Amino acid sequence: MSIQPPNEVFDPYERLEALGLKLDTRKLRAEWFHATRRSGDLLFTSGQVAHNASGPLYRGRLGAELTVEQGQESAQLAMLNVLSLVHQSTGDLRLWRAFKISVAVSATPDFAEIGEVVNGASLLLVNVFGPIFGAHLRTGHSNVALAGGSAVEVEAIFQARN
Amino acid sequence: MSIQPPNEVFDPYERLEALGLKLDTRKLRAEWFHATRRSGDLLFTSGQVAHNASGPLYRGRLGAELTVEQGQESAQLAMLNVLSLVHQSTGDLRLWRAFKISVAVSATPDFAEIGEVVNGASLLLVNVFGPIFGAHLRTGHSNVALAGGSAVEVEAIFQARN
Amino acid sequence: MSIQPPNEVFDPYERLEALGLKLDTRKLRAEWFHATRRSGDLLFTSGQVAHNASGPLYRGRLGAELTVEQGQESAQLAMLNVLSLVHQSTGDLRLWRAFKISVAVSATPDFAEIGEVVNGASLLLVNVFGPIFGAHLRTGHSNVALAGGSAVEVEAIFQARN
Repeated sequence: MSIQPPNEVFDPYERLEALGLKLDTRKLRAEWFHATRRSGDLLFTSGQVAHNASGPLYRGRLGAELTVEQGQESAQLAMLNVLSLVHQSTGDLRLWRAFKISVAVSATPDFAEIGEVVNGASLLLVNVFGPIFGAHLRTGHSNVALAGGSAVEVEAIFQARN
Repeated sequence: MSIQPPNEVFDPYERLEALGLKLDTRKLRAEWFHATRRSGDLLFTSGQVAHNASGPLYRGRLGAELTVEQGQESAQLAMLNVLSLVHQSTGDLRLWRAFKISVAVSATPDFAEIGEVVNGASLLLVNVFGPIFGAHLRTGHSNVALAGGSAVEVEAIFQARN
Repeated sequence: MSIQPPNEVFDPYERLEALGLKLDTRKLRAEWFHATRRSGDLLFTSGQVAHNASGPLYRGRLGAELTVEQGQESAQLAMLNVLSLVHQSTGDLRLWRAFKISVAVSATPDFAEIGEVVNGASLLLVNVFGPIFGAHLRTGHSNVALAGGSAVEVEAIFQARN
């Protein structure tokens, strides 16, 4: 019988540090947009792409300019930006568990490995929140093109732990 | 005056049998993914494509390799897989009513009959749950490509009946 | 210090009139579809495209047949149709605040200004509901093609104000 590690083992902040990933602490552009909004026990987020202080990363399409590995890293970084939104707007990632992610991948018509790219976002959630609080619903779509030429966009819903 | 049949007439299991459709009872792949997750009175599902025990069905794009009829059947089978998720994870389809579906269709740029394809999923809901519990919100999108080359992906939200 | 105008200043109906925009009061096609559905404090809507009494407007793709300005107006009109749904089904736009929009844009692979097009929908919400009740979460996607050849489809979630 395999026993899963208790969720308490997974402190999101320690896990991010162990993975060498940093949350974005720059002030989020607000204007008309909310970063996150809560209803009931769910926290919805806006869609995020992979970017750092210098601008968007990984522009292009899967199946053409980008490899599957680059797509996965793009999905991971977009997911990391979603976590930054949650951290900045609610103050504590430990209040939340993953609930659902929707991942849009910019791709060519013959690219069939959408699921592999989406795994980049899924794996980050599981690595950071652990196998129970990190498990989630998901959908993956392909797009002709994404805002600013980005390769991957991730939006997510989190659920309050208690 | 047209009187709609009472919803009690529509037992989802009897209706599926009458339509010659079988729920998938194979153990669902779990890992990091949830099949369904509940918040409040809503039950969210992961995206599903058309597949049977032998693998994916109806690979290709509408407007090229596939006809509208094949697209509709693909949407119906993907919707059936969503119902299988709900049945397996909650134990009883009769607890739920349809709430919202999002259908992604793999298509060529000149294909304008997305709505016709989405009808394959919508009709199944109405046929199985009846005109009241089966009515739903919907959105239909087109994709350049879907996971594994599938033609249609369906995700859905159900609402508790009481 | 900049002081934001109180939300009471923004009566959605007065604002729509000031903008020269009219809600669609034609009877909505119902059949199997709901125009809006509520769960908890959220009101979900079906996806809407830009159309008037004569049929769909702005058919085509961004990056080919349509300019960014036409895309923005298409997004605004689709958003207006969403507001019509909310008005018709709940009786009063003043009960609601914007919560989240998902905008699908029909585009060519080299079109990178999805965000500019989505602004057409975002700006209408802010203009009609004001900066606080109009602020929202958003995601923008591109599609190979949309139902009936439409350029933009908008779906939205609103939240009860109290």
